[in-house]
Amino acid sequence: MRTHTLIMPLDMHLHLRDGAMLEAIAPLSSYSFSGAVIMPNLVPPITNKQSLEAYKSRIRSATNRRINDDDSDEFELMDMDYFEPLMTLFYQNYSREFLEDICDDIFAIKLYPAGITTNSDGGVESFEIEQMRETLEAMSELSIPLLVHGESDGFVMDREAEFMSIYEMLALSFPDLKIVMEHITTKAAVQMLDRYKNLYATITVHHLLITLDDVAGAALQPHLFCKPIAKRPEDREALREVALNAHPKVMFGSDSAPHPQHAKESCGCAAGVFTAPIALQLLCEIFDSEDKLDNLQAFVSDNAQSIHGLCPEFKEVTLKQEPFKVPESYSLVVPMYANRSIAWSIEDVL
Amino acid sequence: MRTHTLIMPLDMHLHLRDGAMLEAIAPLSSYSFSGAVIMPNLVPPITNKQSLEAYKSRIRSATNRRINDDDSDEFELMDMDYFEPLMTLFYQNYSREFLEDICDDIFAIKLYPAGITTNSDGGVESFEIEQMRETLEAMSELSIPLLVHGESDGFVMDREAEFMSIYEMLALSFPDLKIVMEHITTKAAVQMLDRYKNLYATITVHHLLITLDDVAGAALQPHLFCKPIAKRPEDREALREVALNAHPKVMFGSDSAPHPQHAKESCGCAAGVFTAPIALQLLCEIFDSEDKLDNLQAFVSDNAQSIHGLCPEFKEVTLKQEPFKVPESYSLVVPMYANRSIAWSIEDVL
Repeated sequence: MRTHTLIMPLDMHLHLRDGAMLEAIAPLSSYSFSGAVIMPNLVPPITNKQSLEAYKSRIRSATNRRINDDDSDEFELMDMDYFEPLMTLFYQNYSREFLEDICDDIFAIKLYPAGITTNSDGGVESFEIEQMRETLEAMSELSIPLLVHGESDGFVMDREAEFMSIYEMLALSFPDLKIVMEHITTKAAVQMLDRYKNLYATITVHHLLITLDDVAGAALQPHLFCKPIAKRPEDREALREVALNAHPKVMFGSDSAPHPQHAKESCGCAAGVFTAPIALQLLCEIFDSEDKLDNLQAFVSDNAQSIHGLCPEFKEVTLKQEPFKVPESYSLVVPMYANRSIAWSIEDVL
Repeated sequence: MRTHTLIMPLDMHLHLRDGAMLEAIAPLSSYSFSGAVIMPNLVPPITNKQSLEAYKSRIRSATNRRINDDDSDEFELMDMDYFEPLMTLFYQNYSREFLEDICDDIFAIKLYPAGITTNSDGGVESFEIEQMRETLEAMSELSIPLLVHGESDGFVMDREAEFMSIYEMLALSFPDLKIVMEHITTKAAVQMLDRYKNLYATITVHHLLITLDDVAGAALQPHLFCKPIAKRPEDREALREVALNAHPKVMFGSDSAPHPQHAKESCGCAAGVFTAPIALQLLCEIFDSEDKLDNLQAFVSDNAQSIHGLCPEFKEVTLKQEPFKVPESYSLVVPMYANRSIAWSIEDVL
C-alpha cells in the first residue's frame, strides 16, 4: 500500500471558536497538525493581552489530548506542546507601545473589513492609509505579519478582486510589512503573488476542490457555503496551479470554520466549511491525483516555515492510500464531504 | 389612499405541481390572476393528450374556489372559468400528426435541456436542429409557441449566456416559430429581444429584485435559490429596464415554484422561489418605486395578450398602497420575503 509522510504540517488559518465548540473540535486539529494560526474573531474579538492569554490557555487545555487512532471515545494525554496555537490579535489601530509589549506573544494580527464575515463587526471601516499608518509601521518594524481577509463590500463574486487595489496600496506603502492574503479564491489574487515581494497567501483545501457550481449549481449545499465564496473554474485552476506546484509564497490554511448543524441547514445559513479533520487526507488525494505528492510538504509546512521563520514541534503524519469515509458529523458539526469517501486516510501520527 | 387597478393579470410561467401541493397552492394563483401558463414538468411529464386533460381537470377542480379576502379559512366558490390554465406539453420530438391532433388543447410546448432543473430528466439531450426539425416545423406551421428553459450545463453564472447561441440558431432556423425565452436573468438575454423578431421573453418578479448577493452574499438564503440562479447587478438592471418600460416583447411569468419547507431548508435545497400569492403586490411596489405604475398593465397582461392573441376571462384586481405582511408560510410552503412587509396589498378582486 502506498503511503506518504508529512513532517510538521501546519494549518496557517484556523477557526477554533470557544467554549464547548472549542473543546469538541480543537483535538481534531491538534491530532494531525503541529500547529495552527488561530483566528481572533471571537465575540468579543481578541484585542488585548489578557484575552489573548486566556484564549491561548483554553486552547491549550482543549488540545492537551488527542483523539485516538482507533476511534474509541477515550483520549490519550499528550504533551501540550505537541500542538502550537499561533495566536493572533484582531486588527484595530494599536499604539506602538502596545505592540512592543505584546509582540512576543502573538504570531500576527488579522485584519477584517467591518462586517465582511462571521464576527467581524468591529473590523476596519475604511482603508485610509494615514489612519492605519502608526499601527502598520510599528508592525512592520516589529516584524508582526498582517493577515488580511481581503474582500470589498461589493457583489459577492467580485469582492476579492475588488480588494486587490487595497492589497497593492498596503504592499507599496509598507514594503517591509509581511502581508498575507488569507484564503484566496481568485486568479486575480494569485497574480498578485509575483507582483509584490511582501505579499503572500494562504489557500484552503476546499477552494482547490469546489467552485460556485458545487455550492449553488445543482441543489444548494450549505456545508460548502463560505466566505469568500467559491468562485469560477478558472479561479480554481489558478489556485491549483500555485498550490500543487508549491509556489514558495503560498501556504496551506484550512479556514476550517465550524458551525452547529442547525446553523448551516436552515434559512439564513452561516458561512464556513469544516475541513480540519479531513484536510490532510483531501490534500493527499488532490496532490496525488495530479502526480504532485512531492510538493505537498512545501505547501503544508515548509513554505510557512521559510516565510515566517517558524520552528514547529516535531510531528510526523503518515497517510496511506486507503479509502476514508468522512463521518456524517463530528460532534454536532457536519464536515465537508460528509459520508463521502476520500482516497487517502491517516495511518499514523508520531 | 392610492390604489391601482390591473385588468386580467396573467402569469405566463407557473408551476402548480400536483396532488396535495396543487390543491394547496392553485387557489393562490387563481385568486388574483385571470390565467396562467402551466408548466408540464411533473413526474412523469405531460407528453400526451390523456395526461394533459387529466392534469387540466385536476387544476380546474383545485381552482374552482378562491381564498377569501378576509383571511378566514373558508373558501368561496367561484366560476371555474375565472382562472384559465393555459396548458403546455413537455417538449419531445412529436409527430406532425400528434401535434395537429393536440394543438387546440395546448397553449404551447415547453422545452427543457435534460437535467437542467426540477423534473427535467426527460428533456432534450442535444440541440441538433435536424433531429428537432420535424417537430419545430410542425409547431411553427400550427402556431404552437416554443417556451424554452435556456440554460447550458456550464458554470452556473454562465449557463444562460451560453445558451444564447442556441436561441439564435432556433430563431434563425424557424423564423415563424414563436420562441419565448423563459424566466430570463441576464443582460445577454435582454439584448436578444431586439435582435430576432420571433424571440420573446418572460421575466419573474424575483429576478427584478434580487441578485446572487441576496442568495449567497450574506447568509445563504434557500428561499431565494432558483434556476436560473439570480445573476449580477447589471443583469438585474437590464431586466428592470425592459420590464419597467413595458418592452412589448416581455411578459410577466412568475416561475413561482413551491417546495415543502423541509426540502428548502436542508442540506441539498431544491431550486424554486414561491411568489404566486405576493407577485402582484411586489410588482406594484417595484413599478411604483420607479414611477412606472402605468406600465405595469402591459407587463402583466397586455403584452401577453398581443403576443399570443389571448382573450382572458375578465378579472379586475385593485391594489392599494397599504403595507402587506407576507405570511410565514402558505400551507407548508415558505414564500419569498416571508414575514417581510410589502408596500402594496390587494384591496379587491372583481
